[in-house]
Amino acid sequence: MWRAVELSSRAQHTTPPNPDVGCVILDAHGEVAGEGWHERPGAPHAEIVALREAGHRASGGTAVVTLEPCSHEGRTGPCTTALIDAGVRRVVYAVTDPNPQATGGADVLRAHGIEVDGGLLASEAAAVNARWLTPFHTGRPFVVWKYAATLDGRSAAADGTSRWITGAGARAEVHRLRAAVDTIVVGSATVIADDPQLTVRHGGTPVPYAEQPLRVVVDSAARTPATARVCDDAAPTWIATAAEVGSTPDGRVDLHKLLATLYERGQRYLLLEGGPALAGAFWQARVVDRVVAYIAPALLGAGPTALAHAGIDTIDDAIRLDVREVTTVDGDVRITATPHPAPDSGVAGPQQPAVAAAADEEA
Amino acid sequence: MWRAVELSSRAQHTTPPNPDVGCVILDAHGEVAGEGWHERPGAPHAEIVALREAGHRASGGTAVVTLEPCSHEGRTGPCTTALIDAGVRRVVYAVTDPNPQATGGADVLRAHGIEVDGGLLASEAAAVNARWLTPFHTGRPFVVWKYAATLDGRSAAADGTSRWITGAGARAEVHRLRAAVDTIVVGSATVIADDPQLTVRHGGTPVPYAEQPLRVVVDSAARTPATARVCDDAAPTWIATAAEVGSTPDGRVDLHKLLATLYERGQRYLLLEGGPALAGAFWQARVVDRVVAYIAPALLGAGPTALAHAGIDTIDDAIRLDVREVTTVDGDVRITATPHPAPDSGVAGPQQPAVAAAADEEA
Repeated sequence: MWRAVELSSRAQHTTPPNPDVGCVILDAHGEVAGEGWHERPGAPHAEIVALREAGHRASGGTAVVTLEPCSHEGRTGPCTTALIDAGVRRVVYAVTDPNPQATGGADVLRAHGIEVDGGLLASEAAAVNARWLTPFHTGRPFVVWKYAATLDGRSAAADGTSRWITGAGARAEVHRLRAAVDTIVVGSATVIADDPQLTVRHGGTPVPYAEQPLRVVVDSAARTPATARVCDDAAPTWIATAAEVGSTPDGRVDLHKLLATLYERGQRYLLLEGGPALAGAFWQARVVDRVVAYIAPALLGAGPTALAHAGIDTIDDAIRLDVREVTTVDGDVRITATPHPAPDSGVAGPQQPAVAAAADEEA
Repeated sequence: MWRAVELSSRAQHTTPPNPDVGCVILDAHGEVAGEGWHERPGAPHAEIVALREAGHRASGGTAVVTLEPCSHEGRTGPCTTALIDAGVRRVVYAVTDPNPQATGGADVLRAHGIEVDGGLLASEAAAVNARWLTPFHTGRPFVVWKYAATLDGRSAAADGTSRWITGAGARAEVHRLRAAVDTIVVGSATVIADDPQLTVRHGGTPVPYAEQPLRVVVDSAARTPATARVCDDAAPTWIATAAEVGSTPDGRVDLHKLLATLYERGQRYLLLEGGPALAGAFWQARVVDRVVAYIAPALLGAGPTALAHAGIDTIDDAIRLDVREVTTVDGDVRITATPHPAPDSGVAGPQQPAVAAAADEEA
């Protein structure tokens, strides 16, 4: 299963909106006969890829897969049928499929006499697949907060200039990240200050309208000018005002309602791009699932920080995270982290039980 | 020489105040016969360690060493004599020894008929040994700026609390770093706010007075209270006032004069521990040689930043660094970086030619 979990992490930029799944087929002697992972929507599921590699050796063998095999007729046919037809004797999976359209695969397999066990390395497999699993449990999109800052935490200089804090490699990665999500969110202050277009471009060329993520401007007081680039016809846009979405007592857009509305519209994977006050509001609402920080080896000593107004006054209330990955990208440092799930961490307060449950899913 | 440079980096916490040196002995057939590095003061030099391992195979062979072999009679006898006695035919070194007491080793070797070449991988070897080399060229101690901050760049929460931002592993490393330097510097604001003792402790136990680094409080207006812990008798202390050191036009301690005075007193390796305004003054003076940042996976959204008042208003004037190492320490991220040496980076302005030359040494 460790190997299957590793395989499941191979295509995380191209699988959305599908799950990240890995599969290993062992033959009747317990030898590895096939391996596979789901590469992208429309491509065969991990089980199918692994079964093809295993060929006749799958007969009498075991399928080890990170997600309960699906039993629904998608673009590639149910995996349960393929496993049954291949003569697999046993199926071991990590995470139960929460998708109401695909769940029940284990029961189908058992009905055909296959031995089925679930739950092996479930938390490890779920961590890789959190982007896909979280919305089922929370009823909101999976939220990634991406930001770029200097080593001393500045997202711009004192005069507001920020081009470029990070290098070309980090900026190219951000376009790949945008291409993977279905929703990009900024605040109206960022639109007014920077006038970003927020489209996915590859090598400077925008991808077609139909492939562009939804651009969402959180704009409590409807301040976004109609001439803003984010309102152009390159991609769909939603100016989300407090009047339309619903508001918090202080008149700001209620982020829980915003995310619930996005979920109802089918949005599942959201990239929060800024600025600091909106990021602070997302953290106050405890609706961030992952942080991707690009830290440039530069110092400014003045200027706005990446995060503000998170509602934290003292060190004991700090939002604690777990570092998932640290790497260098073209001279910059990329740190990926997730909220620390320990129940006593204070991260998931009792006022947000639904979000607390989501954080636990990430464990 | 790549191997020798790698060996030279093995004991960087224990070699001070001695240089970091690595050595490989090749036998007459060009096979590796011995390897060594300098471990700590009083221990044999790298050449001696490598020659011992090589034994008789050194005869007719080649010594590859990262620093020109010394010709002075120290605690362990000159390395030149040992190389001559071992019958080495050729010596290849990276960096010429700038130490007036030890230089001239190459000439001594040549006078004994040994073929000598210098300069191979000199910049790579110098980068490892920068802590020891820089003071010879700049006439000031090598300056390491160490700080701890959250992922969003805060060195304390809004209410000033900062215990603990980083974990126990990072804090233990800081004590090892303090033990390696001969000088620890803070500003009077930090003394007044936090009242740190600034001593080296191992497992909570302070090391003897004679092994403690000099504690320096940069205190332009002589505000340090006599009751401050930094003034206790656990370690030597210097309250460096503008009146004693000399001042800048705005009445602050002149850092160039401070560092020159420390150098005259024999101080060679300085750890700058804070706070943000003093760090800003060091960067404005362009007298920081290395940054060691402990980044805790935590978010605060408010509170003081690690660096302030660095004199930078716009992104084009940002201080650019090169990342030398990124690693995790007990859940925190440690980033080591050095000022970017490119002449067009704007880092080394023409107003500080001596410091600019120092930055070039780091290339």
